[in-house]
Amino acid sequence: MTLAYGVLEGGGVCARGDGRVFDLSGLAPCFDGDSLNAFMARGPQFWAQAEGRISEGRELAAARLAMPFEVADYVDFYSSLHHAHNLGRMFRPGAEPLLPNWRHLPVGYHGRSGTVVPDGTAVRRPSGQRAGPSFGPSEKLDIELELGFVVGIASELGAPVPVERALDHVFGVVLVNDWSARDIQAWEYQPLGPFLGKSFATSISRWVVPVSELADRRVPLAAQDPEPLPYLQEPPWAFDIDLEVELNGTVVARTNTRHLYWSIAQQIAHLTVNGASLRTGDLLASGTISGPERDERGSLIELSWNGEEPIELPDGSARRFLEDGDEVVLRGEPLGEVRGRIEAAAGGCLRGTVGG
Amino acid sequence: MTLAYGVLEGGGVCARGDGRVFDLSGLAPCFDGDSLNAFMARGPQFWAQAEGRISEGRELAAARLAMPFEVADYVDFYSSLHHAHNLGRMFRPGAEPLLPNWRHLPVGYHGRSGTVVPDGTAVRRPSGQRAGPSFGPSEKLDIELELGFVVGIASELGAPVPVERALDHVFGVVLVNDWSARDIQAWEYQPLGPFLGKSFATSISRWVVPVSELADRRVPLAAQDPEPLPYLQEPPWAFDIDLEVELNGTVVARTNTRHLYWSIAQQIAHLTVNGASLRTGDLLASGTISGPERDERGSLIELSWNGEEPIELPDGSARRFLEDGDEVVLRGEPLGEVRGRIEAAAGGCLRGTVGG
Repeated sequence: MTLAYGVLEGGGVCARGDGRVFDLSGLAPCFDGDSLNAFMARGPQFWAQAEGRISEGRELAAARLAMPFEVADYVDFYSSLHHAHNLGRMFRPGAEPLLPNWRHLPVGYHGRSGTVVPDGTAVRRPSGQRAGPSFGPSEKLDIELELGFVVGIASELGAPVPVERALDHVFGVVLVNDWSARDIQAWEYQPLGPFLGKSFATSISRWVVPVSELADRRVPLAAQDPEPLPYLQEPPWAFDIDLEVELNGTVVARTNTRHLYWSIAQQIAHLTVNGASLRTGDLLASGTISGPERDERGSLIELSWNGEEPIELPDGSARRFLEDGDEVVLRGEPLGEVRGRIEAAAGGCLRGTVGG
Repeated sequence: MTLAYGVLEGGGVCARGDGRVFDLSGLAPCFDGDSLNAFMARGPQFWAQAEGRISEGRELAAARLAMPFEVADYVDFYSSLHHAHNLGRMFRPGAEPLLPNWRHLPVGYHGRSGTVVPDGTAVRRPSGQRAGPSFGPSEKLDIELELGFVVGIASELGAPVPVERALDHVFGVVLVNDWSARDIQAWEYQPLGPFLGKSFATSISRWVVPVSELADRRVPLAAQDPEPLPYLQEPPWAFDIDLEVELNGTVVARTNTRHLYWSIAQQIAHLTVNGASLRTGDLLASGTISGPERDERGSLIELSWNGEEPIELPDGSARRFLEDGDEVVLRGEPLGEVRGRIEAAAGGCLRGTVGG
């Protein structure tokens, strides 16, 4: 079993390895808190030492995990070409699917770090304004299957991180479900981007897998076309991690992280090229991961083509978007899974449900 | 002198009142740290008690202030009608200046909380991609004069804050300079909003003025048209605070916070209506504050009309946007000021300055 780190309910860092779980608290002060942040801030030498010492921890028969780290800034990229292409085709039919900037820079935006929640947290259907405007529970509640990188080593304000040093700042990887309310987002997002359509919840897996554990999963990719600007240039690569989307027990999509066009190193070089600093605990998500095939799409809006082609489930029901009670599990070894069940929208505390 | 709170260099909360500054550390545990967050989390009863006890603190002959609070999430709204109208006229000539959603909801997005810096911090000119694409130091570096609200009392995930209770969550107010690189932003912002054009620095004043001190500055406004949806309805109001923008010693704009269309209570009701939670330390900025007159505009892009009408300074020079060495001071009693000087862009560490 691949090495991974988590935080125990009640506090203390733990490690998973060789099918066993060890409580590391007491081995070093940075293992005693209620997040991985102090450990992640220590750097690669300490991380390597820790790896050799995990069996010195107290072995646990069972472990209940808490939120693994305190999220500093949460950035969500848009780095899958097939995903960006699919959304462009749906929303700008007849036009060039990719916007002019897409192949030149890893498009991204800041999300709400205060609403990042761990695997298993129930997700309440958000209410909000939709076009019209009208007000009510989202009717286009969706998932986004993403890979999330967690920053260990901070960088200085005003000092861009060169692309060839960018991976040095990354501690580990989680799975991310960037829940999205498409109808709320469509009405609000011009001109400043997604806000309430995304900010109600973002789920992450509870085990953080060190990037060092994924070294043998690096695969080369074809050259980017056009060649990126110098600050983004590196030999093209991606991780090779199979992922799947399960909806109410049925796998509705299978894809792979190798379908990401921009690498995490390029994302970090871009994020910091203006002098912005990294902090320990920054969560950098890839954006929805979709492959070229129909069943390789990482969101329901793509799988159901904005509702035009409902997804049929074995119980005879069909889904355009998520219904109350639906449970989604994103899964991919060695990252584990991130699960969430949809709860009905909040009730009577809001004055009025229809406006105009 | 209006009551305000800050944090001393080296730690400890301090208070300003009656022209004197008091070190409150030792009076309560929440005054002993290196941010206002623990104090702000205590709530209105404790805040009122603290106000009556500040002279029990140790009087300081001089105080050097640090960053006042740890920023949780930073949200930037777009709540000045004249500002949104001016940008619409510049960038979509011939079209309706306001986008269809603007009068129905307080448009906003998440900024980078890790690069919020205190008054006086030098701002390095950011480099990045512009249209073309080309790469280099921003040629359209700008300011944005904003009012910032700081959240004291957190709210629960999944529980919207009603508009009539929203102000209960706010501890205080700061001045904000949301530095902006217009050329970087113009190339990157479709479809997910501003990112590197804003994330290099956001400056705030070092004294936080409690909202309770601004009670007598609330003024009624004309009714919003159209009437907002029920969750945003309250009697229209704004604060009456005179503000000015000083560039290299010359005041180039004077405006007032009463020019904001959406109130902080409406912004909070909107931000949480989807179930998103507030945390202590959330910074909610108004967006650029511009009035109806030419010299009431809170950004250089408006004052110089995107460079077409340069601002003439007494030394015979003119400004379209900021030059290296320029110093900007935003000022408004009782909030104080927020100052920043522009440093030249970072040099040789970046490979190449022109791409293609």
